[in-house]
Formats: sequence, C-alpha cells, structure tokens
Amino acid sequence: MTPDTLKDLVRTVPDFPEPGIQFRDITTLVGNGPGLAATVNHLARMARDAGAEAIAGMEARGFIFGAAAAVELELPFIPVRKPGKLPVATIGVDYALEYGTDRLEIDPTSITDDQRVVIVDDLIATGGTAQAAVQLLRMAGGTVDDALFVIDLPDLGGARALHDAGVTVSALMQFEGD
Amino acid sequence: MTPDTLKDLVRTVPDFPEPGIQFRDITTLVGNGPGLAATVNHLARMARDAGAEAIAGMEARGFIFGAAAAVELELPFIPVRKPGKLPVATIGVDYALEYGTDRLEIDPTSITDDQRVVIVDDLIATGGTAQAAVQLLRMAGGTVDDALFVIDLPDLGGARALHDAGVTVSALMQFEGD
Repeated sequence: MTPDTLKDLVRTVPDFPEPGIQFRDITTLVGNGPGLAATVNHLARMARDAGAEAIAGMEARGFIFGAAAAVELELPFIPVRKPGKLPVATIGVDYALEYGTDRLEIDPTSITDDQRVVIVDDLIATGGTAQAAVQLLRMAGGTVDDALFVIDLPDLGGARALHDAGVTVSALMQFEGD
Repeated sequence: MTPDTLKDLVRTVPDFPEPGIQFRDITTLVGNGPGLAATVNHLARMARDAGAEAIAGMEARGFIFGAAAAVELELPFIPVRKPGKLPVATIGVDYALEYGTDRLEIDPTSITDDQRVVIVDDLIATGGTAQAAVQLLRMAGGTVDDALFVIDLPDLGGARALHDAGVTVSALMQFEGD
C-alpha cells in the first residue's frame, strides 16, 4: 500500500478535542491489518535508511508504530514515558502544552553513548512533544538526527521547529489546512 | 531466543510502586533488539495458533507487544484505551483497582460481529484490567477466548480469574512468589 492509500485509512473527526480542530485519527488505520503492516513497513525502511541503532516512541500511540518498527529491524525500543510510569531512576523534560505543562521520562540506562536513536510517533502538530523527546534522548547521550511520523500537519509548524533543532523530519503523509 | 533466555532480560525492581512489591519491568526486555523481536515472534505464533482475526492491546505497554504482533500477522490492531483518548463515541467498562477505579474504552466500530479477538498485554497480575478488556471486547461483539501475556504472576490469580470467564491464558514466562 502506498502512503496515498494509507492516507485514506485515517479518519478525520471534526471538533475534537475542541471546536474547530480536525482530529486525524489513526484508530481506523491500525484497525486495517494490511494498512497497519504497510505503515510500519514504510517507517522501518525510513528508520533503516537513517541508520537507526535504536527506535524511541512516545507514550501511547508512538508505542504502536515505534515498537513494531523496532521489531521489524530487530532494534532496541526505547519507551518515552509519561511521568511516574518507569520503576527506576529516570531523567525527564517538562514541556509546555496549550494549557499547562506535561513531562516525558526515560530510563537513561536504556541508551548507550552516541547511539543513533530515531524517533517514531503517529503525528506531528506543533512539535512540542517531539522537541521534548529530542532533548531528553540527547540528555541521555543519544544522537538524535531523525524523527519519523505517520502524519505531519505542516501548517502547525512542528516539522520546522524540529528542523531548527537539527532534526530531519519525515512523514508518510501530510494534512494541510489544519 | 527461548522464553527462558527472554526471562533473563526482564528487570526486577524491588519495592515499586510500593514496599514489598517486586516490579517486573519489561523496559530492559524491549531495550534488547533481538529479545524484543523474539518476544513478539512468540506472541504472534501463539495468536495465530489461537485463530486470531484481530489483536487487542491495552494502553500503554500492551501497545508495544500487541501492535507488533498484529503487524507480524497482518491483522487489525484494536487499541484498548484509557478514558477520553478516543475522538469518537466509545463504549467503556469501569473496573476496580486496589485504590479507586479505572476505565477502559474502545471504538465499538473497530470490531466486527463474532470477530475472533486475541488480547495481548505485557503482564497479568490480579487480572482486573484484562477482565475489563474481555468484557468490553465482548460487548462490542467480539469473540474473546484467548489472552496472551509476556509475563504471568500466577500467585496473584489473574490467569485463574480469566479462565473462569472462559478465556484461555498463555504466557511466555512466569514469576512465582510475588
């Protein structure tokens, strides 16, 4: 399946989580067996081309695509978690949301020095979460030059912001006008 | 890698989340590329043997193993989510925790009538979450006869409780004395 075909499997939900937002929902994409497998296949190929030595995915939807891509390449998967989930000493980064803040945490021993870590997530919008993940994985010693997404919403500027942080962004599909 | 070798990749963290609990942590297992791939391979084979037509995984760690197993079999993946995450009309089940309650939700349109859904999660302890997932997937019309786990803590009785609900439980490894 081509990315164009896969794009048709993404469901658009108007006015979620608030009026005026078009929510791009991957539930329908992952609910299609061949579609899910093709999506992960594309991501794994892109990660291999980027020289990935490990894949990092953000809780929770990033776990769906990131871990499966890691399995396809037989690479380690680094779960980037919400606060308080990991049972060991963590390092974390706080980042701003539209209202309030959130935090990402990892187990720093899950990364070796200069390991080439490729980030995988379902969607990049403003890029706040992805930027925090880049900062966090770099704090742990990782080399983070690439981030892969199923969906990019280019009008929201996340890819540009990551680019400014020295990260190459690739996405399987874009939705404009969001 | 055999399940016995994979068991050595699970990290035991004492006294988390509270004193006296031995936390069995899969972060180190998924952080080992061949170990993660072998784990998913075993789960996918077990799901295929159970006649899976779809794989359901519980947020968040169940996404790691469940989605990857679905990819391996080119089957649909049904994310069983925490409340408020899905952008569409959901059905949900509340269930008791040691302190308070929690809730699982799915998009009911993600399951077709009598579809054979196999549950995949990282660990079964008392089985409260898994029982709620079984109930929820059955409410949506799914046939749920099998649940697969990386780790079973048999002393906590979860596998027995699922069995009483008509679900066959299989796990790659057990930790006794918990």
